[in-house]
Amino acid sequence: MQLLLIHSDYIEYETKKDTPVAEEIDESFKKGRLEEALTVFIAVESVDETGRGEVVSRAVADIKKVAGQVNTERIMLYPYAHLSSDLSSPSFAVSVLKELEEILSPDYEVSRAPFGWYKAFRISCKGHPLSELSKTIRPEKTEEICRQDEEVVSEALKAEDTATS
Amino acid sequence: MQLLLIHSDYIEYETKKDTPVAEEIDESFKKGRLEEALTVFIAVESVDETGRGEVVSRAVADIKKVAGQVNTERIMLYPYAHLSSDLSSPSFAVSVLKELEEILSPDYEVSRAPFGWYKAFRISCKGHPLSELSKTIRPEKTEEICRQDEEVVSEALKAEDTATS
Ligand SMILES: [Mg+2]
Repeated sequence: MQLLLIHSDYIEYETKKDTPVAEEIDESFKKGRLEEALTVFIAVESVDETGRGEVVSRAVADIKKVAGQVNTERIMLYPYAHLSSDLSSPSFAVSVLKELEEILSPDYEVSRAPFGWYKAFRISCKGHPLSELSKTIRPEKTEEICRQDEEVVSEALKAEDTATS
Repeated sequence: MQLLLIHSDYIEYETKKDTPVAEEIDESFKKGRLEEALTVFIAVESVDETGRGEVVSRAVADIKKVAGQVNTERIMLYPYAHLSSDLSSPSFAVSVLKELEEILSPDYEVSRAPFGWYKAFRISCKGHPLSELSKTIRPEKTEEICRQDEEVVSEALKAEDTATS
């Protein structure tokens, strides 16, 4: 999961056109606006499908931490595919976004922009040092797999060194 | 290089505070605004240092192509470190951003937001299907290096298969 968190004077959107993967929404969801909010642009990635619970709980912890630092109780969850080149399935992404909304809602005023729609948006970023942060969240198991691959490469290179020396 | 291109009703920024890698700027550069512009958020990456000329010319081609598609002659170049987790050196990034500005300036009204400053910004994204695009640009040579690494891994795995079968 990729997160881009922006402490915003305001964030507002309106849907313009559905895409083939658009979430079905009713009229009230077609526009949204929050003032003095933490806007969280989110890309749910394919690797998140291998460790959903962990990724969701770490995202919640990160969002709560930053919301506390910038002292806001308003959160806009905004799907943003452009933060990753390896996205999850659309249905998985929608379900994760809804889960984040559900978990955060008891403690914050949460809005969620709809998934899979072309949207116009306006945002004002405050510009103080904590007003823009990005986070990459990956399931631990995957990190282990990556480390194993690196070991294979380094063993292979060692073997090659031995063979040519 | 990572690019995020947004067709904008307006984009405006003002510097708030310098960081340790801040570009030296004079007063006139501390605020900027363009209307009806293509905003290009840019992260210059470490791998770009291995193929600067190629990356710059492909970025210019992409920016010109999108500016043509959305029919604007105004371009805001906006450094955006949050688009990558593997950034180039600050001095390389500044020099690339200045080169993009120089190459595009004869044909477009170009503004460039300063590098290494905390900035407040306001943007309005139009929301039509071409109004948000992202691009990853990597030197060709690097792609070859990656392919070679994959071959090493697959040869190593084949060797392991043989050893255990
Ligand atoms: Mg900024």
